[in-house]
Amino acid sequence: MIGIVAACLTTFAFAPQVIKVMKDKNTKSLSLVMCFMQTLGIFLWLVHGIFIKDFALIFANSISFVMVAIILLYKIKYH
Amino acid sequence: MIGIVAACLTTFAFAPQVIKVMKDKNTKSLSLVMCFMQTLGIFLWLVHGIFIKDFALIFANSISFVMVAIILLYKIKYH
Repeated sequence: MIGIVAACLTTFAFAPQVIKVMKDKNTKSLSLVMCFMQTLGIFLWLVHGIFIKDFALIFANSISFVMVAIILLYKIKYH
Repeated sequence: MIGIVAACLTTFAFAPQVIKVMKDKNTKSLSLVMCFMQTLGIFLWLVHGIFIKDFALIFANSISFVMVAIILLYKIKYH
């Protein structure tokens, strides 16, 4: 049960950040390197999940990937 | 191998953000809700890892937990 709650929290944690960057168009205090590492890392988790055919990994990381990719794009656009 | 690279990226992705908030003392564009959800989520991953005695989960999440907790404290202090 704790693992499921942890997975939901860390998967959906990016949602409020996506809303904030879209609303404020201000990404000054976000680290570009963190955004890039998160996007690449979560993408690799997604690939790993597909390789090992783990639905939970695929599901959670495809949601997170979309959100961190949006944050990365906003960081690049509004740096 | 992809899983290990993914784990390293998502674990150490917070390091550049810790450096940036410590250097700039500016957390304006960081979402407090994201910081809180990440800190709680990663803490629960750590607890989950301890329960299932998974060294990799314990190792990765204890590192991430320290970093996201620092980011959360800076966000609260310099909001």
